[in-house]
Amino acid sequence: MSGLSARAVTSDADDPLAGKRSAFVLDDVVYLDGNSLGALPAGVPGRVEDVVRRQWGELRIRSWEESGWWTAPERIGDRIAPLVGAAPGQIVVGDSTSVNVFKALVAAVRIAGDGRDEILVDATTFPTDGYIAESAARMTGCSLRAVTPAEVPGALSGRTAAVLLNHVDYRTGRLYDLPGLTATVRAAGAVAVWDLCHSAGALPVGLDEHGVDLAVGCTYKYLNGGPGSPAYLYVRAGLQDRFDSPLPGWNSHVEPFGMRGAYEPASGALRGRVGTPDILSMLALEAALEVWDGVSIEAVREKSLALTDFFLECVAEYVPRGRVESVTPVAHEERGSQVALRCPDAGDVMKRLIERGVVGDFRAPDVLRFGFTPLYVGFVDVERAARVLAEELR
Amino acid sequence: MSGLSARAVTSDADDPLAGKRSAFVLDDVVYLDGNSLGALPAGVPGRVEDVVRRQWGELRIRSWEESGWWTAPERIGDRIAPLVGAAPGQIVVGDSTSVNVFKALVAAVRIAGDGRDEILVDATTFPTDGYIAESAARMTGCSLRAVTPAEVPGALSGRTAAVLLNHVDYRTGRLYDLPGLTATVRAAGAVAVWDLCHSAGALPVGLDEHGVDLAVGCTYKYLNGGPGSPAYLYVRAGLQDRFDSPLPGWNSHVEPFGMRGAYEPASGALRGRVGTPDILSMLALEAALEVWDGVSIEAVREKSLALTDFFLECVAEYVPRGRVESVTPVAHEERGSQVALRCPDAGDVMKRLIERGVVGDFRAPDVLRFGFTPLYVGFVDVERAARVLAEELR
Repeated sequence: MSGLSARAVTSDADDPLAGKRSAFVLDDVVYLDGNSLGALPAGVPGRVEDVVRRQWGELRIRSWEESGWWTAPERIGDRIAPLVGAAPGQIVVGDSTSVNVFKALVAAVRIAGDGRDEILVDATTFPTDGYIAESAARMTGCSLRAVTPAEVPGALSGRTAAVLLNHVDYRTGRLYDLPGLTATVRAAGAVAVWDLCHSAGALPVGLDEHGVDLAVGCTYKYLNGGPGSPAYLYVRAGLQDRFDSPLPGWNSHVEPFGMRGAYEPASGALRGRVGTPDILSMLALEAALEVWDGVSIEAVREKSLALTDFFLECVAEYVPRGRVESVTPVAHEERGSQVALRCPDAGDVMKRLIERGVVGDFRAPDVLRFGFTPLYVGFVDVERAARVLAEELR
Repeated sequence: MSGLSARAVTSDADDPLAGKRSAFVLDDVVYLDGNSLGALPAGVPGRVEDVVRRQWGELRIRSWEESGWWTAPERIGDRIAPLVGAAPGQIVVGDSTSVNVFKALVAAVRIAGDGRDEILVDATTFPTDGYIAESAARMTGCSLRAVTPAEVPGALSGRTAAVLLNHVDYRTGRLYDLPGLTATVRAAGAVAVWDLCHSAGALPVGLDEHGVDLAVGCTYKYLNGGPGSPAYLYVRAGLQDRFDSPLPGWNSHVEPFGMRGAYEPASGALRGRVGTPDILSMLALEAALEVWDGVSIEAVREKSLALTDFFLECVAEYVPRGRVESVTPVAHEERGSQVALRCPDAGDVMKRLIERGVVGDFRAPDVLRFGFTPLYVGFVDVERAARVLAEELR
């Protein structure tokens, strides 16, 4: 057994989160793609079966009240809240991330007010944010400018209405300075919208603490909600009365069953709701979130950094020098919970890794992505992944 | 046995769709709320279990390709297509009805082109359509005018960009003249958007035959997709190249995994996609749609009219005269698949009906709604519902 391999065993033995692995359905595969689709929490299948067979099949329409379907978006939002540092009553679950980006950006422009007619968007963003930002700009009479997060402070002006930022870059895994950028954007009189897809559930976000106004995120990565599970929208409590949604569906009405012709928005987080909530997916997510009982996000962060540190160390030790280049920052304060390695044949390499039971993913044109989900990935997994990677790269 | 009761037994025996009842999970309740939430098709629980345990739990990320997750929105759209008279390649499933109304209305205004700056909306519509229409108008620089469907021909002008119409009124069950109104709107140079929530799966729609441009609908009523199951969007093939979505998420990109900065829409129905599809709910819907195998929508319509005719006849026979007033049209060509009865104490009456195993619903302020889903409601059910209603109204 090599030194790294022995250390992996010791680290797993000392890992206070190691017991959480049994809360997931896993096999012999090293699953490093939880930053794309989280593994199945063991409690989900039974819950989904109950939702389908009893709540839908037997209670049918009565479940909207009796099984708590109607209030699920706010209730599950409150379950996500502590993971992203939010007090209750500020998060609502529903729709896709793209749709929530649209709600948040348009609302941000409206909050920023007259005379502000420019939206800044992270030029390195996951594409959908940029596409949606373009539509939000077009529909609010704003211009759109793509800048890197580092360029944001210099790009802010009296014209800036909203800034759409990623907490962690989907490709490189770079973690951005949410507290600093939030304060800078606010000082310029603009409103920041944070996309938390690649940070929520992997590291502390501190939405309330850092005075974030608006944020969105998906739930199928580190929150393990299942394929395409509904996204969420955070609106800071102090801003909710000014949240003016571009998608004012009947679920956000103050009296949804009043069937009133005039729209009057509800107060609170549920102002971010739109149409009828997608119950099957939403309640699967609710069951999935139970794995977080008793888990501190600080402990998750500590393990996440230890895992990515260890992976980088194993890669440095095993992989021939110069064969791959890490595009993930070395500094902890700039690293999310994934490691991205560039190599020209990344697509082929990832195919071979997957065949050998090491599952990451490939992002065009040349990036191997490895996501480290501290609730179910251990150090022995990490060492094995690096070893197999090195064998395939030789 | 009364005459009506005996006739019910005979009608059930002669019903060519009677065998379909066993394709659903039902009990002794007379379920007349399938126009709100369809009953559970028997094939759904097993399918959902496979999606959760095997596709998600074992294959995980591989299922996006291997289990056909990625292409589900178009594939399931094609499964809905014959039920609404559409050729393949024009329907995509995803998002809520409200979100799809927004996409369709904004796209309609853009198709109508410059100089047209008014949206007409059905004044009697389910509220969400009106709220969303107001937002679409605000965001496209249009004014919004609420008119009854009968007033539409007179309200059309050179200013009209789009008209949002309901095929069947959610409250009264009135069926509107889709072919005639579509032609009238088109002749005025405007674009009609049809909301099919209360007609799809209950009667022939004939989207292609009648030259409909844009339509949306939910899948949890007569299509039995489950609580909050994803909605769908129909864009006529000849119009798809001009469909300019206000929600251009990465799923509608010509090359979604190209991670390209510039948005270039895909061609075809999938231009209506937005974000990551909600797989659990979507594949439950796909399983639910299998109950339609071998069913002609014309046969469904024939039975639907027979059921509502029979219900009205039983009500007239059993219920004390003047105790309720039907707001559902008598003429077949103006009737959907529900009967709405007004009485001042409708809320209380419906509570008592539900306690006695006759499940309809109440719509404020004074409407008892009874939905008749021909795949699983029989004539004996109908007679029992009317009899219990009469007892409670005496």
